[in-house]
Amino acid sequence: MEVLILGSNSAAFAYGRHHTAQILKNDNKFFLIDCGEGTQIQMRRYKVKLSRIHAIFISHLHGDHYFGLTGLLNTMHLFGREAKLRLVGPPGLRDVVSLQLSMSRTSLSYPIEFTEWIPETEQLVYEDQKLTVTTIPLDHRIDCSGYFFIEKPKPIRISREAIPDQLSQAEAILLKKGEDVLNLDGSLKFKNEDVTLPPNPSYSYAYCSDTKYMPELAEKIKNTNLIYHESSFTEEMAERATSTFHSTARQAAQVAKDAKANGLLLGHFSSRYSTLDGFLTEAREIFEETELAIEGQTFKVV
Amino acid sequence: MEVLILGSNSAAFAYGRHHTAQILKNDNKFFLIDCGEGTQIQMRRYKVKLSRIHAIFISHLHGDHYFGLTGLLNTMHLFGREAKLRLVGPPGLRDVVSLQLSMSRTSLSYPIEFTEWIPETEQLVYEDQKLTVTTIPLDHRIDCSGYFFIEKPKPIRISREAIPDQLSQAEAILLKKGEDVLNLDGSLKFKNEDVTLPPNPSYSYAYCSDTKYMPELAEKIKNTNLIYHESSFTEEMAERATSTFHSTARQAAQVAKDAKANGLLLGHFSSRYSTLDGFLTEAREIFEETELAIEGQTFKVV
Repeated sequence: MEVLILGSNSAAFAYGRHHTAQILKNDNKFFLIDCGEGTQIQMRRYKVKLSRIHAIFISHLHGDHYFGLTGLLNTMHLFGREAKLRLVGPPGLRDVVSLQLSMSRTSLSYPIEFTEWIPETEQLVYEDQKLTVTTIPLDHRIDCSGYFFIEKPKPIRISREAIPDQLSQAEAILLKKGEDVLNLDGSLKFKNEDVTLPPNPSYSYAYCSDTKYMPELAEKIKNTNLIYHESSFTEEMAERATSTFHSTARQAAQVAKDAKANGLLLGHFSSRYSTLDGFLTEAREIFEETELAIEGQTFKVV
Repeated sequence: MEVLILGSNSAAFAYGRHHTAQILKNDNKFFLIDCGEGTQIQMRRYKVKLSRIHAIFISHLHGDHYFGLTGLLNTMHLFGREAKLRLVGPPGLRDVVSLQLSMSRTSLSYPIEFTEWIPETEQLVYEDQKLTVTTIPLDHRIDCSGYFFIEKPKPIRISREAIPDQLSQAEAILLKKGEDVLNLDGSLKFKNEDVTLPPNPSYSYAYCSDTKYMPELAEKIKNTNLIYHESSFTEEMAERATSTFHSTARQAAQVAKDAKANGLLLGHFSSRYSTLDGFLTEAREIFEETELAIEGQTFKVV
């Protein structure tokens, strides 16, 4: 898994920073997470093919997190998309998109499968062969949810050293299921544990969108590989962070530390900050493995 | 009057060209005409202060003409705007904006005065001391209207040569009204026609948004100083222009020629064109005073 940052600013555009949007790439599927105004322009800038987007997850209905959505859906339509698009978000998202499409009398060239989550509830909102996505209820001024992307356990690996000869497909399937391979007479051809290796690790990514500091959040995303956590402010603005239901860099770092994450990405910077060094310094005092969600950069989930 | 182009592309972003938006500057008032996604970013790029925007005119509810609107309204709110904003557009615009604001529980810091026009009707939708704006019904796939900005007649000018001495305010007001100035005894102090000059000319700007070629349009905007007319295509795509209710560069030029305009601005270029020279060449064969609506450029209405 890796994350490409398309936008990292809150509220108003500033200092070349755009509204929130990022792409999680997993096993050739692209998941767009939030879609602020101008996201499709940013996707063009960073050479993301619209047709690769498999599902879109919107955290809440503040404009800086979704005002690029219907425009993007429109452009996919103009490009003749046919594949189904999964669209996950808060209650009301469907109404807004539907109203905009109906006003323009647009009948999309592809189907959308909407999933509107139930506020303040941890809920499975997406599942495919490789991963699940559950909501992470957050504490913001309106219903808001993060998304927890968790890879499913991966198959047992076959040791090429232990089996130098070519396996048949049927044999490989058995071994990956954890079973032995028998000869025609019922005798053992390969004992599973002798010829296999443990699965590759499964990774997880916790996208924590706009929220007041939630000490209890760490427990819910314990041992995540990579956390994205908003940090609209640095600590000298802690009161404003609390009153506007946002977090500081230090608070985001505390969540990552308590969750024993491997890494932390900070984003959603307030327009009042012309430079971002202060965020990094402040967070790293608490949690060393912190990076800034700089637009155009890609971060591996490890 | 002058026009600053913020976006000139149709449908999808392409070749660095953005969705439709432009600013008409008149007597220190700024009028934003259409507001595609990313308009607020373009305004920042070209150093347009949001607080200068006095009124916004939306031509129709295709996303490439208004998906930047609610984001812009939001940003004006974040910047603490207090002055009333006039917002003019098609029926339904208010519903979309209201739904988006209610979903984000935003109560704007300033009042909006909405005017939704009646489709297929020429209608006065804005008036101030200096100008009027009337709708120009167009022929598109959904209700769509251009806007005709017409400066009111300007006052008679007082000839500084004919009256070298300083006038009192009261005397100047009388003269500008076209009246004579009398002495206390009723005798003539200044005969109006002796000491005044004709008013400066009044200018007009016709913004013709998405439309199929309408030969009858020219008559409605006769003798306009400057016409903006969409030209999504060049002539080799004339059939597609007609079937999608758009115009070619040649058709736009024909409108300008028939209207006896002083100038023509072409815009709303299809994403299929990487360069725009063909539009200019084609239009100038019909109407020499044609320019391309290049983003960031300002065109005087003369």
